[in-house]
Amino acid sequence: MDMHDLTRELHIKNDSKIVMLVGDGLGGLPKDPGGKTELETADTPNLDALAARGVQGLSTPVKPGIAPGSGPGHLGLFGYDPLKYQIGRGALEATGIGFEMQPGDVAVRCNFCTLDAQGNIVDRRAGRIPTEESVPLVESLRQIKIPGVEIFVEPVKEHRFVVVFRGDGLGGNVKDTDPQATGVPPLDPVAEDEASQKTAEVAKEFLRQAREILKDHPKANFHTMRGFAERPNLPPYSEVYGLKAAAIAVYPMYKGLARLVGMDIVGDAKTLEEQIDTLKKHWQDYDFFFIHFKYTDSTGEDGNFDEKVKRTEQLDGCIPGILELNPDVLIVTGDHSTPAFLKSHSWHPVPTLLVSDCCRPDPHTSFGETTAITGGLGQFEAQYLMLLALSNAGRMGKYGA
Amino acid sequence: MDMHDLTRELHIKNDSKIVMLVGDGLGGLPKDPGGKTELETADTPNLDALAARGVQGLSTPVKPGIAPGSGPGHLGLFGYDPLKYQIGRGALEATGIGFEMQPGDVAVRCNFCTLDAQGNIVDRRAGRIPTEESVPLVESLRQIKIPGVEIFVEPVKEHRFVVVFRGDGLGGNVKDTDPQATGVPPLDPVAEDEASQKTAEVAKEFLRQAREILKDHPKANFHTMRGFAERPNLPPYSEVYGLKAAAIAVYPMYKGLARLVGMDIVGDAKTLEEQIDTLKKHWQDYDFFFIHFKYTDSTGEDGNFDEKVKRTEQLDGCIPGILELNPDVLIVTGDHSTPAFLKSHSWHPVPTLLVSDCCRPDPHTSFGETTAITGGLGQFEAQYLMLLALSNAGRMGKYGA
Repeated sequence: MDMHDLTRELHIKNDSKIVMLVGDGLGGLPKDPGGKTELETADTPNLDALAARGVQGLSTPVKPGIAPGSGPGHLGLFGYDPLKYQIGRGALEATGIGFEMQPGDVAVRCNFCTLDAQGNIVDRRAGRIPTEESVPLVESLRQIKIPGVEIFVEPVKEHRFVVVFRGDGLGGNVKDTDPQATGVPPLDPVAEDEASQKTAEVAKEFLRQAREILKDHPKANFHTMRGFAERPNLPPYSEVYGLKAAAIAVYPMYKGLARLVGMDIVGDAKTLEEQIDTLKKHWQDYDFFFIHFKYTDSTGEDGNFDEKVKRTEQLDGCIPGILELNPDVLIVTGDHSTPAFLKSHSWHPVPTLLVSDCCRPDPHTSFGETTAITGGLGQFEAQYLMLLALSNAGRMGKYGA
Repeated sequence: MDMHDLTRELHIKNDSKIVMLVGDGLGGLPKDPGGKTELETADTPNLDALAARGVQGLSTPVKPGIAPGSGPGHLGLFGYDPLKYQIGRGALEATGIGFEMQPGDVAVRCNFCTLDAQGNIVDRRAGRIPTEESVPLVESLRQIKIPGVEIFVEPVKEHRFVVVFRGDGLGGNVKDTDPQATGVPPLDPVAEDEASQKTAEVAKEFLRQAREILKDHPKANFHTMRGFAERPNLPPYSEVYGLKAAAIAVYPMYKGLARLVGMDIVGDAKTLEEQIDTLKKHWQDYDFFFIHFKYTDSTGEDGNFDEKVKRTEQLDGCIPGILELNPDVLIVTGDHSTPAFLKSHSWHPVPTLLVSDCCRPDPHTSFGETTAITGGLGQFEAQYLMLLALSNAGRMGKYGA
C-alpha cells in the first residue's frame, strides 16, 4: 500500500506549522580513522539544544546501500517512495534549470557533439565547448518550427542543453540517440511504445532541422538527445497531506523538485539569512515550509572537510531564527550524505532530528551520526518522515477503529 | 511476500508454550519535559527482572507515524499485516459487542436519527438518546423479517446499534446511508459492486420496515446505516502457525479480535488475577496464550498519568503467576502507545520484551521506552513479533537449504 493512500484518508487540518530544514548532503564520514564526522566536528550549539529536547535517528534515503541523486533524495524526504516515483533525466534537467514543465510535456537532455564528414561521431561532447560559445548556438536552435508542437530550447552548461516538446499525444518513451561510442553515427530516435510514436517523429524532425542549422560549426555541428521524459505525475502536498506548502530554496533544482510536489516557491532569497527572512515573512501563509541549504553538499562534493564543517555551523546558526516563530514541528535532516572523504553523494543514512512537544525525546544532548545510531527514531526510511511530521503536528487521525 | 506464506511452510509443532501479555496502549510519554514515561515511572520489579534475562526493543504497530486503532494494533501483534488485512467498521463494531460473525455475514453500524415531517434529518444521533431508551427500540426492530435472510439486531450504546445480515450471496460493499449532513434525507443503500446488490436490497427493505416501526418515536424516528462490512477473512492461527491458541481477555472487543484469528476464548475472567487463574487452568490445553490487559490504555485515554503508572504496576504484578508455569517464550508488549499526555492512541513505537532460554539478551536490566531504544530487538514492525515468538519456541524451521 502506498503511504499516500493512508495520508489521503487520515490527514487532519489544523493551525500547526511544520518546518523541514534540509542540509543537502548533511551526513558525512570522519576525515581520518577514529575521527569525527563533519557534523560532529562542527560547533553546533543550536542543533545540540534541539537534540536535548527532541528525538533523533538515521534516515535511509532509499534503501540501505543506495546513494541517491537529488531527485530521489528529496522525493523520499517529501514522502514519495523514491523507487515508485522516478523523475526521468530530461525532466530532472529541465527542473534543475528552473523550467516549469506542464503535464504532457516531454523534456530531453541534449549534448552538442562533433561529427566527421561521414557523419560519424568523433566527440560526444563537442570538445566540452564553453558555455559562452554554446548559449548562442542553443539560441539558434529556437528557430526550429514543427507544426502542432511548441518547442522550448534552453541552455544548461557547456555542451549541455534541454529541449522540451509541448503538444497533444506526446509520450516519453523514446530511446536515446547517443550511441555511447565514437566512430559511429548518432542513432535515430525510436519510440518504445505506441504513445511515444509522435514524440519520436517530432524529435527526428527537430534533429533534421538542427543538423542544417549547426552544420558549419567547427565543433558543435550536431547534437544527441538523451533521457526523454514526461513530467512526473506526483500527487501534490495539498491532496496527499492537506498541507499548504512553501519551498524556500536558492537553487533552481530544489525549487523545481518542490514545485513537482505542489509546493509554492516563495521569496527570492540568495542566502540562508534571506531564506529565514522569507520564512518569517510567509509564516502565516503556509502550513509547511521546506528550507533547502545547498552548501553542506557542495563542500562535501569538493572533498573539503573543513569547509563542510563551517557550512554546517552556518546551518546551525539559522536555528534561532526558526525557533522565534515557534514551529509545532521542526525537522533537521538531509536528502543524503555527502562525505568530504568520498567527494560524492553516498548511501550512509542521514542524521535526522525531530522536535515537537509530543515527540518522545531520547537521552541525547548533541546531534551527530554517532548519537543518531542510538536515537529514538531508530533507523527508518526517509519516506516515512512526513508521516512522523504530520503525526507530531496533530495532523493524522487514527488508522482503523 | 506475506509472512504467512513462510510460516505455513516453516512452522514446526512441539510442546512449547508461548505467552503474549498485552498491556493495551503500553507505550507512553513523559508527563513533563525531561521526565520519565508512565512505564519508566512505574515500580516494575518483575518486568525489570525479565529485562535482565531477556531482550527488548520497540515495536512499530503499522508504520512510523501511524497511530492504529485496536483492530490494526492487534492484527499486527498477531502477525497479520495491518495494511493488508482490514476490519471494516461494521465488523469491528459487531466484534466489539461480542457478536460472533460467521463467514458471509455482513455487519452494519446503525445510528438512530431524527427526521422532520419532510423526511429530512434534523439530528444525526437522535439527541444521543440514552441507552435505557434505545435498547427497547433496538429490540423492537427484531420484528423485521426479510425472506431468505437471517437478521440480528444488537444494541451498542446510546444512539448506536448493530445489524447483521446472514444469508447467501451477501457482499459487503454498500455505501453509507448517512449523508453526514442535516437538512437532507438519508440516502438509499447503494451497492458498490455486483456481489453486494442483494445486500443493498435487503438493507433497503430493512430500512422500509424500520421507518414504519420507529415512525412515532419523538426523537429516534429513523436510523442510518454505515460501514457495511463482511467478516474479515483472516487465516487462523492453527493454519498459519500450527498453534492451538487461547485468548484470555475481559473486554468483548479483544475476545472478538482473537476469535477472528481462530483463537479460543477461554474462561470468563473479570480481573487480571482471574485471567492468570484462567491461564493456569488451561495451561495444558493450548500452545499459545494471548492475555489482554485493558487499563494501561483506558487510563492513558483519560489523560491520567498517575493512574496509568498504577495500572502498569498492576500488570507487573501478574508476571510471577505466569512465570510459575515456566512458559518457553514470554512476550510483554502493547498494541500501540497511549500516552496520558496525548489522551489518545499514538504512533510512538511500543516497548516490547521477549524472554526465552534462547533469546539473545541485551545489557538492559530495566524495561522502558528509553532502554528499549537500544535493546537487542531494535525497532521492528509488530507483524514480525509472531515470527520471533515461534522461533524462540523452537517452532520454526530453516528457510531454504
